[in-house]
Amino acid sequence: MLDLFIGNKNYSTWSMRPWLVLKHFDIQFKEHLIAFDDFQPDSLFKKTILTINPTGKVPALRDGELLIWDSLAICEYLAEKYPEKQLWPKDTKQRARARCMSAEMHSSFTALRSTCGMNLDADLAEVGAKLWSENSQLQQDVKRIETLWAERPSQNGFLCGDEFSIVDAFFAPVVMRFIGYGIPVSAVNQHYIHSILNLVAVQQWIAEAKAEHVFVECEEPYRTQKA
Amino acid sequence: MLDLFIGNKNYSTWSMRPWLVLKHFDIQFKEHLIAFDDFQPDSLFKKTILTINPTGKVPALRDGELLIWDSLAICEYLAEKYPEKQLWPKDTKQRARARCMSAEMHSSFTALRSTCGMNLDADLAEVGAKLWSENSQLQQDVKRIETLWAERPSQNGFLCGDEFSIVDAFFAPVVMRFIGYGIPVSAVNQHYIHSILNLVAVQQWIAEAKAEHVFVECEEPYRTQKA
Ligand SMILES: N[C@@H](CCC(=O)N[C@@H](CS)C(=O)NCC(=O)O)C(=O)O
Ligand SMILES: N[C@@H](CCC(=O)N[C@@H](CS)C(=O)NCC(=O)O)C(=O)O
Repeated sequence: MLDLFIGNKNYSTWSMRPWLVLKHFDIQFKEHLIAFDDFQPDSLFKKTILTINPTGKVPALRDGELLIWDSLAICEYLAEKYPEKQLWPKDTKQRARARCMSAEMHSSFTALRSTCGMNLDADLAEVGAKLWSENSQLQQDVKRIETLWAERPSQNGFLCGDEFSIVDAFFAPVVMRFIGYGIPVSAVNQHYIHSILNLVAVQQWIAEAKAEHVFVECEEPYRTQKA
Repeated sequence: MLDLFIGNKNYSTWSMRPWLVLKHFDIQFKEHLIAFDDFQPDSLFKKTILTINPTGKVPALRDGELLIWDSLAICEYLAEKYPEKQLWPKDTKQRARARCMSAEMHSSFTALRSTCGMNLDADLAEVGAKLWSENSQLQQDVKRIETLWAERPSQNGFLCGDEFSIVDAFFAPVVMRFIGYGIPVSAVNQHYIHSILNLVAVQQWIAEAKAEHVFVECEEPYRTQKA
């Protein structure tokens, strides 16, 4: 049995990626939510996760004795373990693109990541408008993402083909940030946002996030309490 | 024919990764060095790389019509294209570890990366001693890397097995930083440093870096001229 350790669904973008892949492709797993707190060395989050994962972070996947502690490596592992499910695009060229985009997501877009933390429970449109007008780095990150999205092979499809694949799981949290912060998105990419929002797995994640009703202060630079 | 676009060998850690993989595994490719400069929008570096790679960065691999623009995705692409060469470890468990470590390198260690830029031509031991004593984030990054290195299956081997694999190409630039900045490394990991330095491909990269004799100001926060 696979065990996936994740953080709060409302906040944890890195957790969302492998969770969506597992759900969407109907791979059985047991989910363990380790609640976020202040992440101090003596916090319950750290104490709990450190018994499982020496990096002290989520997500982590356990397959028997084996621990896989990074979201991209988890997805590669699953792609190898379930080749029949086609977790990466089948086409060589689109698979290479999908890996480039996923790796770029993994290592870049620091302005978007640091200023627009995911918060599915919050309407941060006003905050987003201010950030957008003031932060040119954020604008550049969004511009690059818009370009990548617009290059998808078919307007009504996913990023690297007709079917959802790992790369879409990597950009789903970006979709959530764009919506939450009211980031302006071009018409051609609105289609893509709808494709993501229409996925059953995404809808389940969002619903479960909204049902958490937890307010973690260090994840909430823009609110003082829940709406 | 494969075309690899890289930056200056003296400075470009991201370029070093796929280059080492190609060289070490004896895969034929044509190398194109695009010299670093001030990276301004109108610089020669940017003008040149932007005709090839829309991200405006190196490395990039071109295989016919296909452009692969991220170092990790390039390595995955090569691993798929040359399965007989075993670019990732053969063992499933070690392969999962190798991917975790490579992805962690891709997304983390920001203190090491930002303060100890690679500079093969320079002896930065004094700078390193100061950074080391003052920067606890840097110490934490190094501690984590030491842990990962020490967990290799055999002391005389590479990170995830007896043979060099992609993960070692990802950590070779770290070896270079540790040496250049005189970062203290535990006895058990000295072995690993030597294994890396003994590789023909690594020796060729270093020799070519030292033969460049180019001084790029924005890559030289610690020197005002070459030694
Ligand atoms: N590169 C890792 C990053 C994971 C990560 O940063 N996780 C965050 C939560 S979304 C975390 O656990 N933070 C706790 C901390 O930094 O103390 C991955 O892809 O899995
Ligand atoms: N995630 C990319 C990062 C590449 C990268 O940052 N390259 C640097 C050189 S080592 C670069 O081209 N910088 C130019 C710039 O940022 O303008 C990869 O793995 O290939």
